[in-house]
Order: sequence, then structure tokens, then C-alpha cells
Amino acid sequence: MPMQALRTTVKVDLEKDAGTLPYLHNRWHPDIPCIDKIKNNETVKIQCVDWTGGQIKNNDSADDVRDVDLTKIHYLTGPFEIEEAEPGDVLVVDIQDVQPLPDQPWGFTGIFAKENGGGFLDEIYPKPAKAIWDFEGINCSSRHIPGVRFAGLIHPGILGCAPSHEVLKTWNEREATLISECSHMGRDVAQPPNATNVHVGTGDDSIKEKVGREGARTIPGRPEHGGNCDIKNLSRGSKVYLPVHVAGAKFSVGDLHFSQGDGEISFCGAIEMAGEITIKFSVMKGGVEHLGMKSPIYIPGPVEPQFGPGRYIYFEGFSVDEHGKQHYLDATIAYRQTCLRVIEYLRRFGYDDYQIYLLLSCAPVQGHIAGIVDIPNACTTMGLPIDIFDFDIRPEAKPEKRDLGSCAYASK
Amino acid sequence: MPMQALRTTVKVDLEKDAGTLPYLHNRWHPDIPCIDKIKNNETVKIQCVDWTGGQIKNNDSADDVRDVDLTKIHYLTGPFEIEEAEPGDVLVVDIQDVQPLPDQPWGFTGIFAKENGGGFLDEIYPKPAKAIWDFEGINCSSRHIPGVRFAGLIHPGILGCAPSHEVLKTWNEREATLISECSHMGRDVAQPPNATNVHVGTGDDSIKEKVGREGARTIPGRPEHGGNCDIKNLSRGSKVYLPVHVAGAKFSVGDLHFSQGDGEISFCGAIEMAGEITIKFSVMKGGVEHLGMKSPIYIPGPVEPQFGPGRYIYFEGFSVDEHGKQHYLDATIAYRQTCLRVIEYLRRFGYDDYQIYLLLSCAPVQGHIAGIVDIPNACTTMGLPIDIFDFDIRPEAKPEKRDLGSCAYASK
Amino acid sequence: MPMQALRTTVKVDLEKDAGTLPYLHNRWHPDIPCIDKIKNNETVKIQCVDWTGGQIKNNDSADDVRDVDLTKIHYLTGPFEIEEAEPGDVLVVDIQDVQPLPDQPWGFTGIFAKENGGGFLDEIYPKPAKAIWDFEGINCSSRHIPGVRFAGLIHPGILGCAPSHEVLKTWNEREATLISECSHMGRDVAQPPNATNVHVGTGDDSIKEKVGREGARTIPGRPEHGGNCDIKNLSRGSKVYLPVHVAGAKFSVGDLHFSQGDGEISFCGAIEMAGEITIKFSVMKGGVEHLGMKSPIYIPGPVEPQFGPGRYIYFEGFSVDEHGKQHYLDATIAYRQTCLRVIEYLRRFGYDDYQIYLLLSCAPVQGHIAGIVDIPNACTTMGLPIDIFDFDIRPEAKPEKRDLGSCAYASK
Amino acid sequence: MPMQALRTTVKVDLEKDAGTLPYLHNRWHPDIPCIDKIKNNETVKIQCVDWTGGQIKNNDSADDVRDVDLTKIHYLTGPFEIEEAEPGDVLVVDIQDVQPLPDQPWGFTGIFAKENGGGFLDEIYPKPAKAIWDFEGINCSSRHIPGVRFAGLIHPGILGCAPSHEVLKTWNEREATLISECSHMGRDVAQPPNATNVHVGTGDDSIKEKVGREGARTIPGRPEHGGNCDIKNLSRGSKVYLPVHVAGAKFSVGDLHFSQGDGEISFCGAIEMAGEITIKFSVMKGGVEHLGMKSPIYIPGPVEPQFGPGRYIYFEGFSVDEHGKQHYLDATIAYRQTCLRVIEYLRRFGYDDYQIYLLLSCAPVQGHIAGIVDIPNACTTMGLPIDIFDFDIRPEAKPEKRDLGSCAYASK
Repeated sequence: MPMQALRTTVKVDLEKDAGTLPYLHNRWHPDIPCIDKIKNNETVKIQCVDWTGGQIKNNDSADDVRDVDLTKIHYLTGPFEIEEAEPGDVLVVDIQDVQPLPDQPWGFTGIFAKENGGGFLDEIYPKPAKAIWDFEGINCSSRHIPGVRFAGLIHPGILGCAPSHEVLKTWNEREATLISECSHMGRDVAQPPNATNVHVGTGDDSIKEKVGREGARTIPGRPEHGGNCDIKNLSRGSKVYLPVHVAGAKFSVGDLHFSQGDGEISFCGAIEMAGEITIKFSVMKGGVEHLGMKSPIYIPGPVEPQFGPGRYIYFEGFSVDEHGKQHYLDATIAYRQTCLRVIEYLRRFGYDDYQIYLLLSCAPVQGHIAGIVDIPNACTTMGLPIDIFDFDIRPEAKPEKRDLGSCAYASK
Repeated sequence: MPMQALRTTVKVDLEKDAGTLPYLHNRWHPDIPCIDKIKNNETVKIQCVDWTGGQIKNNDSADDVRDVDLTKIHYLTGPFEIEEAEPGDVLVVDIQDVQPLPDQPWGFTGIFAKENGGGFLDEIYPKPAKAIWDFEGINCSSRHIPGVRFAGLIHPGILGCAPSHEVLKTWNEREATLISECSHMGRDVAQPPNATNVHVGTGDDSIKEKVGREGARTIPGRPEHGGNCDIKNLSRGSKVYLPVHVAGAKFSVGDLHFSQGDGEISFCGAIEMAGEITIKFSVMKGGVEHLGMKSPIYIPGPVEPQFGPGRYIYFEGFSVDEHGKQHYLDATIAYRQTCLRVIEYLRRFGYDDYQIYLLLSCAPVQGHIAGIVDIPNACTTMGLPIDIFDFDIRPEAKPEKRDLGSCAYASK
Repeated sequence: MPMQALRTTVKVDLEKDAGTLPYLHNRWHPDIPCIDKIKNNETVKIQCVDWTGGQIKNNDSADDVRDVDLTKIHYLTGPFEIEEAEPGDVLVVDIQDVQPLPDQPWGFTGIFAKENGGGFLDEIYPKPAKAIWDFEGINCSSRHIPGVRFAGLIHPGILGCAPSHEVLKTWNEREATLISECSHMGRDVAQPPNATNVHVGTGDDSIKEKVGREGARTIPGRPEHGGNCDIKNLSRGSKVYLPVHVAGAKFSVGDLHFSQGDGEISFCGAIEMAGEITIKFSVMKGGVEHLGMKSPIYIPGPVEPQFGPGRYIYFEGFSVDEHGKQHYLDATIAYRQTCLRVIEYLRRFGYDDYQIYLLLSCAPVQGHIAGIVDIPNACTTMGLPIDIFDFDIRPEAKPEKRDLGSCAYASK
Repeated sequence: MPMQALRTTVKVDLEKDAGTLPYLHNRWHPDIPCIDKIKNNETVKIQCVDWTGGQIKNNDSADDVRDVDLTKIHYLTGPFEIEEAEPGDVLVVDIQDVQPLPDQPWGFTGIFAKENGGGFLDEIYPKPAKAIWDFEGINCSSRHIPGVRFAGLIHPGILGCAPSHEVLKTWNEREATLISECSHMGRDVAQPPNATNVHVGTGDDSIKEKVGREGARTIPGRPEHGGNCDIKNLSRGSKVYLPVHVAGAKFSVGDLHFSQGDGEISFCGAIEMAGEITIKFSVMKGGVEHLGMKSPIYIPGPVEPQFGPGRYIYFEGFSVDEHGKQHYLDATIAYRQTCLRVIEYLRRFGYDDYQIYLLLSCAPVQGHIAGIVDIPNACTTMGLPIDIFDFDIRPEAKPEKRDLGSCAYASK
């Protein structure tokens, strides 16, 4: 029997306020009603808005980034009821394709202000900034970061099945504990449930109220279901294995990325976009036990932008922070140092630091745990692909200061 | 002019006690005397003992691992005086080849006892264990971990230039601070200078005494010079750029690895071996300033074992520890969880946990920082190559319990 | 200035007879009128019909392949006038994307009957046959060749600039000479101009008559302009450099392929499809002389399905034909033998020979010239990717005869 | 049981005349006596002289190439008796390693004079020429072709089992037929048995006489056993499956290459060297029938120099020869045209044509059969890796004429 063109289960309307669209939601909660039913082994297309629901515009000011409303983010498409899926099963998500919307051939990378979201380097780079990327088929380039062009490794930032009430309770409790334990840190360490701007799709007011009170925020990935993993190679052709916690799985997806670097360091760090994802869903009965699964696993697709191993410059970073303080096997601090080393290196060519911070967030940089046992230093590396630059960045090259323009900044 | 066969500057004698060999040393200190002079742009061969100086034997007991003397480790070959190198220069180390010694075609991977060295998972796997690897040309296999075979990505675990007195002082102070701050942790967080078994090559007693008092231990990599970076792709064909801190650079190298996984998680986790490294040394005058360099950088060689991107299974881990406690963006904890997920997955096929712990330490697994900004969870991933196994480990495969033997354990 | 969604210069109407569509043509001739004007450095989308103009249907019979009308093929979209392009320039064709049409997610591979088109192995496999491929995002599979699935390396089979009158005369003369010299061979060795079913887009009757008399057939690629090169890695992200022979270049494109193996051995051997190609056109002034160019060159895109080098089985073939006759350094005969070796190998698993013939035509097999100087034997190789099969095809595997169905054949 | 250092079955003596060494031979014949016995599943090291037996020297003159004695070539090490191997079995040759001899870190590439050996382009480039390559670990460079450096994909040019008397008879008959049929061509099309300088190892005079009369020359690869296949990716880690024709297999190996391009176009075109190969031999009983095998197959190793797909320039060639004559689907002619296109391109940078001819012979260029069915033109491509050059060779680069020296030529 000949194949039919695929069913598009959700088409997004980018003209409307994302917070009013019945096929979107922005919390994790088992009671958010399903918007469609998908058969076991069915393949469908699903459209998604960008993670901010359209708050960021294709222009040359970062005012929108500065003013972003973080209670109105991570609008996910779904949830979808997957037939036959039961708790204890594994939902196999075969990502057959991901594409930008044809009439939206652009994306954005943002650095959030330290006081509104922040990012991995916000102690050093506290200002909001932005780069707009134009898609040129499989490649992209930015008027805000001249001199680079690369192929996207396109993927969803967020996908997962709804938590059960029990799982949700676990999340809320352990994150609340963290918040209370870290009150001295003077910064948000987690986002507790928050009723402001909660959106539950077609859910009625009582559901909205409940989700506002209990619903897990979408910002972190979580071990029990995946969620906002922000994994750069979860791309076209990948198969993801997700634990199912509720009947019908209640699968949601969103936060599509044209490209991302390991760590997504600027937080709004991928090339964020609206787009369409094509997924085949299959249920592996009893898969959680069969696979000994506590957290999602995946097998990437066979297609990636390829750079030869000798076409990367690798930078090393250690768990001695920028104030000279020694930390104990802290890979987070080591990775921050690694990022700073790349910034120091690239600025010699004429980029300003914010441009590089944006670039390392979204370009296909390889962030590796190198050594994690040589007390007291963790060592991490970042591989920077030479061939995304249209000038020679190798150590032997003379770093003449080019005019490499500027990323978008906020007024004021 | 025809090329001559290369000069071998040091040939190691594996029959002798490493602690007596004049061309080895086991501390970082600017006063350890040079053992040879190498011209700028000269290429030489240098032999190295394994990092324990021969303490670990090719047998089926882990008693030697249990009893390893950690004051007698990291015997490095050198230091070498590189002509023309001055502080502020960068020493370019072109690793042309690394090979095992022809009559030593084997290596070892060890799990150190929690009370003697430990490792990344020692809270869970405290016992000593060992696997011996036989080299079959570019490949290796182990009678202690049947069912796997892979090509080595051979590299030195340690290379670096001697610290200046000033740099050394910085190291000792900041690590002493850590030790005193972490006294509550009940475990070694760093190794301060220690005169026991200090070895300074040809240095006389006064040097020995001084180095015993001040010399930095070789265990950690350090940002100022590299050292024990344990970077798995610093392999044949790589070029490393090292800052020079003292006249003549005083370069040392050792701790050769036939293969290593990202993190080298079991501490003695690479496939440790004696071997020979071929290096061309060049001096980049004023390179530290030219490159804006604070830590070493490198460009890997063009030759790596290649697996298609779709021939990995990727495991996700998050910064919620095994006791269910939420940590704040802690990539170290996330990576530990990632490792545990792989162990849970692979044990279904018949391996015991220690075998897997050894395997993840030394096989070419890819350890990535995935997301480091989605508060409160860091997410790391580990890519496990499917094709190193001689049976099908994919999620769809039926995990029949094979007889997969046992790694070497210590007698009681 | 924000980027706009791209202009689609031609949308094809698959309901209409391709031979009536004003934006298609099926001969190479400088007088075929341009259908649109494209600016230097402009990017446009161009839709194309499949190379048979819709003669082959998505069904389970090869009657359509048997009956294909070869005077009605290779309908190309164009020609396009590229502003500023002059003879002696090089037209740089940046293939930003190639996609199937969203509502046509399938393609076909055909074996033409020996007496109607034939193919590389038609002496041995003279019957018509067909396989339909369903597109699953970046992957494809066929109900006619079960057990395989692979990612497409999608590309145009044909692209080129119009010949000048002078170039056209050269083509017609040298091919006519071949035809007359090879009259003894009892098979078509080239296709001379043929007025039957000539289609010249919007050209009037006098142009039609002229093109029918002089227009070069589209079947062969030709050194002066490229044309039907059928190069499997001329895919997304590739840049092709084409010599310009007439003012405005008169660029045409068509014959899109979802995937092809080296050689495209069954003639209708790629996975043929209708689709849309996105191209940025730039003119390199004086490029022919600058590049010393006699034939097109190209730089592939960075994105290809990746198999590890150790995940291919390579087959060797030599210039001794299937009758045992020795030929002198004949790579064509060697490659035919190589193909036969693969068929002999794969049939042990249960495929019939026509299924394999179809598969080798369209799957990403690597066909290499190995040795071309060791008189009297040329040696060619074909690398067959192991990972496109869902069962183990390695030499060590036991080749149980599976039920692997059948490709489509013609009714009697 | 711990692994022992491997047995080296043959150590070559480069000081002696190869034609006197008892462990070498230079014809294929079943009666040449075995020089050693190897167990089924044993791994051994085997040393080999370069294919000319030392006729070519490390100097700056091509007089030795001009004067090479082609009756004294292809000295192979062996034959080896492989225990348990019988006709109808397959000998599995696991190439664990290939290395140059430590005190011979150099190789050569030659263009043979048209009147003494010739090569693929000898009609155009009839003069003898030579390049010497210095090995720098995994990389090589040449004082005769400045501006390039690349990693070798090291491999044996020749390996195979002895023919049976019956197979040998087939070879001699079919090649004699070719010679008689091609007498009009005015060039050697095959080399018949030739008693001059025949060398049969330890064989006595009667064997020598017989082999001189019947023994197959080693120049061509042949379908029944492989032999001089000159396949560039039959490298470290490869497994080759060879049909066995006589009891004990009588395996021989030689003609080691540090690197080769597809086609090995200049005939002495690889980087020829003496060296040592490590092989594990296993017998697959009844393998010829089991595998449906008529010619050898192989699985490459997992380790290759890697260039991204976008780091090649691809050149197209068609079966229209340099005199403008159209040939019918002739891949040999197409490949010759492809080579000429690369020469025309690269000479713009300052190389002379002979330098490029040498380079394309030995560098890791990819020679593909692109289209072989589009009558009358075969299309072949050659991919030239951009990253082996130390200057920018891309089409956009300005080809300033560099001083790129000269290869070695013969004195007049």
C-alpha cells in the first residue's frame, strides 16, 4: 500500500499569543489534558513555537532579551496520548526529521541579563545580548557574528512524557530542599511552581489552578523523564527511549534548536527557532524494566556535520576558578574556565567577548569531561571547529584585528 | 639531505627499580636537573615506564593494585632542556607517534581501593580490581572483560613544562587552602608535597630534599602547565601548545595510555602501559602573549578510531545524586550518574559492575557536558560505542545473560 | 535587515503532463528560452518533477518501467537567466538544501528492460523491475527490499548551464562518430538528437523544430558543462562550479535523487523523486581561466550519512569478464565484476538478484578505482555499508535464508 | 596466561641483494617452497623489502627510477604454510599492524619512463621522476613536493595465497590471449612468464626453471586470489578474506605502502617502503562456498585519516579523451581525464605537472566511479583533500605562483 503524506497533528499559529493557544502548555503536570491521540507506530508531524513563544524578534536590539518574561517560556506542543502506552513502558521516539518553518528561516541566540535569567558566565558577562541567525538551507550565518558559517545539527531542546503525581511530588520536594539550602547564594538555584502565566492548553480553570500550584517548571531536564536536556546531537534520525509514567504517556515536545554547542552556555544559547518535527512513536512494553532504565537513553542519527578530528582546536580548563581558588573535582567550574580560555583566544581576532559567548553557546563545539579523578582538579576540554570560520584561526595564524562588527545589545 | 633514523634520547630499563633510574622523576619542580638537551625543531624518541613504575603485573590478581604505593607513581621521563625556550614562549609539542614497547604488548586498567587512591565511583565500588589488555596491533582485548575489542587512541596522560618557583608556590598555596577547607570531608582532596619516595633523577641530596619539601605532586593536571590532563584524544599527530615557565622549558612526559575513556573514571582507568613517544619540539617565541594563553591548547591528530554517530548509545545523567538529593548545576555529580546509568544497562548482558567500571574508564566512550545552564540540573551524556562489543547491545536486542567471566580481584 | 522567506521561482504541477509545462524542457540547447531571471547572489527555491515526468507510479508492478517512454525523460526545470553571467565566467551553485515534496514522500528505483534503456548489468539481468521507497524523514525503506533502511544523501542528478552553439556542435559530432563506429555492437551507444517528444518550455514551434534537430539529449553527463553527472555526494551544502557558455548562463536542474550508489548501476538506479532544491547563485567573473577549468568541480557539503570505515564490506573486481576473458586495464569491466561479486554475496541471505541490483544502484555504496596501472588488470572495489541492514551480513554471520519478499516485476 | 611478545617470522636484511634472500620470491607459483609454518589462529610479524628490492635510493636523482630492472621486482616474503588450510577454505588475514622499519623512516614514489614500465599518464608524462618521503610518525612530507603533509593509510600492496596449477594455467592462457590480441597496440599489455631474474626463495634449480617457465608475474592483481590489488584502505585493523587454492595456503605478502591514492596512477605510485606487517591468520573451513566467493573481500580497519566531507575538492572526468574522441562508457578513460583536471588545477599554484602526478599517486585522494550508465559517458570523480596542503587551494583562493621546487628527475 503506497505511503500517504504524513498527518500534521499540530500547526502553530505564530500570529497569536502562545499563552492562548490550546495545543501548547508550559508546565509539566499529569493533569494537563491531551490534545490529540497518536497510534502506536504512527508517524506524525508536530509544529512548535520557539521556546519564548515569540518574545524575541528578528531585529538588532537586545531589548526583547533584556525584558523577556520568564514565566512565559517553554511553550511545549502537546501533550499527546500515545495509544497502548502504560506506566513501566518505554516510549520510543524516532525523530525522523526536524525543520524550521518555511516562512521563518531564522533563529536567535540570546544572553540573558544576570538579573533576569542569567547564564553560565553571567558573573563576568552580565549584560543582555543577542544574535540573529539566517538559515541558508542546512547552513546558518549571522549578521551579528560575521566570519562564521556552519551547518546546523537541528534538534529539539525539550521532549518527555508527563510525570506521574508521585514523580512530580519527588521533583517538587527535592528542588524545594535545594532552594532552602541555597538561600545564602543570592541567586535562583531552581524555579519552584509558579502560577503566573501558567498555561495548560485546553485545561479548565481548576486544572490551571492545580498546575499553577504543583506543576513543575520546564527549565531543568530531570532524570526521571528527560525534559529540557538540551543535548546537541539528539538530531534527525535519532531514536530516544523515554520512560512512561502515566497512561497514554502524555508526550510533549518543544524548544527546537537549529544548532547548539555542548553546555548551551548562555542559557538562551542554542539557535532558537519555531519549526516542525516528524516523529514515529512506538511503545516498548515493559521497557523500563527490560532496559534497566532510570533516565532516558538515545541513539543519535547517522547524519552530523563532520569535521576531521584534526580540524578542532581544543582548549583545556581546570577546577581553579577565575579568582585563583582551587575547587575539588568540580567539572562545572572547569568547564567555565574552558569557556573563558576560548574567549581569550578568539578575542584576538577582533570579536568582542559577548559575540564569542554567543558563538560558543550555539556553534557545534565539543565539550568533554577529560579527567575527573586527578585530585583536586577536574579537567574539561572544548573543541572549537576551525572550519566554521572563514579566516584562519589556527595558533600559527597571525591574528590581525578584523572588523567583526557587534552583536545586538540592549538600549540603555 | 636524506633523513636519518631518529635519535632515541631515553631508553627505559624495565628491569630496574624506577626510583633509581636517572632519567625519571616523580615530582614537578624547577630544580630537578635536565637529563638531555634537545634542539629547537628537533625530533626525538623518548621511552617511558608505565605510571606506576612497574608495580602492576600481567597476572590475574588485583593484589598489586590493592597494595600499590602511591608515593611511587607518575615516574616521568625528563626533564629535557629545549634550546632557545624562555619563559613567555610556547613550546609546540608535535606528537608524531606513540607506541607500546615491542616486547611489552600489554597494558592494565585498575580500580584502586577506596582507602588507597579510590576513584570516581569509590563510594559504590570500593574494592580493588584489574583488567589486563593484550595489544593486537592497533586493537586490544582483555581476558578479564570478554566480548569487547577496540582500537586504541594512544596518548600520553602527562606532559608539561616545569613550573617556575612562583608558579609552584601558587600551586602549593591554593591546594593547601583546599585541604584545610575540606578537612571535614574525610577523604583526600589533594596531595601536598611529600618527601616519601621522592625521585629527582640525577639530582643530588639537597635537591631531593628541596623537591621533597616543595615539589608538586603529579596527580592533578594544573591550569598553568597542563601536566596530568588525561585527555583521550591527545594522540598521534596532535600538536600541543605548552606555556614555558623556566629557561629551557624543562619538559617531561610519561603515563602513556593505549586508550582512555572521557573522565578516566577509575583513576587508574586508562589502559596504562610503558612505551615510546616520538616528539618534534619547536619554540614559539613570545607565544604566551601571542596566543593569549593561560592553559595549554592542542590540535588533535587526523587519525582516530571512527564510529558512525549512529553507532553510539548515549546515556543521560543529571545532578541528582544516587540518594535522590538535588545539587545545583553540578556536572561532576551528573557525570557520576551518567556512568551509573551505563553500568545498569550493561550489567543486563552478564558483566559484573566492576568489569563495566573498568571498561568505561578505558574504552573510547564520549563524555559530554550537554546542558549546564538549566537550573538546577546539569545534564551530561556518555556515548558508548556499539561496535566495540562482539554481541548486540542495542536496546532492541534481547539481553541474554552471557558468561562474561570476571575481572581480576584481590585476594582477601 | 531581517531575512525574508525565499522566493520559489518554479512550483511544479504534478497533475499535468510534464511535456506541457512551460517551465520544463528535455534537451540541452542554447535557444531554449529562459523562464525566469535570477540575480547574482540571489537564493531561490526551484521545484523539479522526477526524471520520467511522472511515468512511474507508487505501486507493485514494473509494467510502467517496462513501458517507459525514453523520449519523454529528463524534464529539467529552467533554463534560468543568471544576471551578470557571461561566457568564460564560472557559475557558483551553492546547493543549500534539497527536499522531497511534502506530499510526495516516496521515490522509485527501476531496472529498465534490456530492450528499452537497459543498464550496467543488462546482459545478465534483462528484465524490468522496480522498488518503491518510502521516505521517513532523512531515512528511507522499501516494501520491495525488506531488511534495509538508510539515510539519503539527497542530490540533483542533473545540473548545468546551456551549451553554446559551438559546444553543442562538438557534442553532436563526436557522439555521431561514436555511433557510426560502434554500429557493430548491436546496442545503443549514444542517443543522437531526436525530435520525438522534444519539449522546449515556452519556446515556439520554430525553436521546437530546431531543438528537435540539434538539441543534445540529456542522458549523458558531458565534460564541458556537467549535466547528468549522477554524482552521489553532490548533496546539501555542496558548492558546484560550472563553466558558463552563453550569456545569462541558462542554468537548468532536475532529476533529483533521494540517494544513489556510486555508478547508479541500474540506470534508473537512484531513488528518483520529485522535489525542491534551494540554490544560491553567484558569478565568478573570468572563472574558467582563473580555475583552469575544463569540467565542473565541486566541494561537497559537510553533512553525510556516516559509517565507520570498519563498517563496510569491500568487494574486489578485476577486468576479467564473466566469460573469463582478460581485458586491458578496463575499469568498466572491473566494476561490473565488482557488482556481481556483491550480488553473489548478498543472495545467500535470501534476496533475489534483482533486489540486490536495485539496492546497489541506490544505497550509499562506495565504488572506488583501486588500481588502474597493474597490467593487464584494473581493480575496482565496492564498499557495502553493513549498518543499512537490519540483520548481520558480515562474513562470520550465518546466512540463514530469510523471506525477503520480492521487488516489483512486470506482468507478462 | 599473559601474552608474549610476538614471533617475527622473517627479518629482512636490507644490505643483501634481494634476489639472493631465501625468504623472498618474485613469481606466483604453487611449487615455490614454503619458508615457515604458521599455526591456525597464530599472530606473527613479517618483514618485507620494498617492491623493487632496494633499487631506489634516498637521493635527488631519478636515474635509479629510469634504470629500474622490472624483472627484479615484487619480492614477496613467503610463502608461508598455514596449518589446516585446504583448497576451498578461506584464509582470514587480520592485519593488526603495518609499520616502516625503524631505521628506514622514508619511502619513495616514482614515475616510470614510458619505455620502461610507464604509468597511467605516460602518453603525456613520459619522463622518469621521483619523490622521496620522510616519515614523521604517522605523517609524511617530501622535499620534492613542498607544501603538503599528510597521515599515511599504511597497507600492503600485495597479499595472496598461491594459485593452484589449474588456476595458474588459466592465468597464463587468458593473459597470453590478450597479448596476442593486442599486438597492434605497441605497448605491453601484460607480462608473460619470464625466466630472467626469477627468484624462488629456497627452491632448487629445477623449481627455478619451472617457475621461470610457468610462474605468473606479480604485477597484476587477479580475481582468483587478489595479489597486487593496490587497495589504499586495506590498512591496519583490516580483515581480508582470501580463497585458498593449495594445501597450506602458501601465503605471501609484500610491496608495503605508507600511503596511496585511488588508482596508484604513476604505477610506482604509492609511497613505497620496506616494513613490518603483523598478521593473525585464521582458517575459515569451507569458506569459499560459504561466502559464495570468487574474489577476495575485506573489511577495513576502524582507523583512517579523517577529512570532513566538505574538505575535499572533487574533480569530474568523462570518457571523452584528451584528443576530443568520444568513448563508450569507458571508466578508465574517464579516470584519466579526471586526473588531468586535477593537474590543470594544481599547477596554477606553482607545482610542475610531474610533482602533481606523483602527488595524486600517493596522497589519500578518493577516486570514485560516479555514473557508469549514462551513455555514452562514464563519469568518474577524484576528491582531493584540502587539508593536506599548507596553503589554501580552494577555488576562492588566489593562486599566487609559489616556489614549490621540483621533484627528482633523471640526468640526461
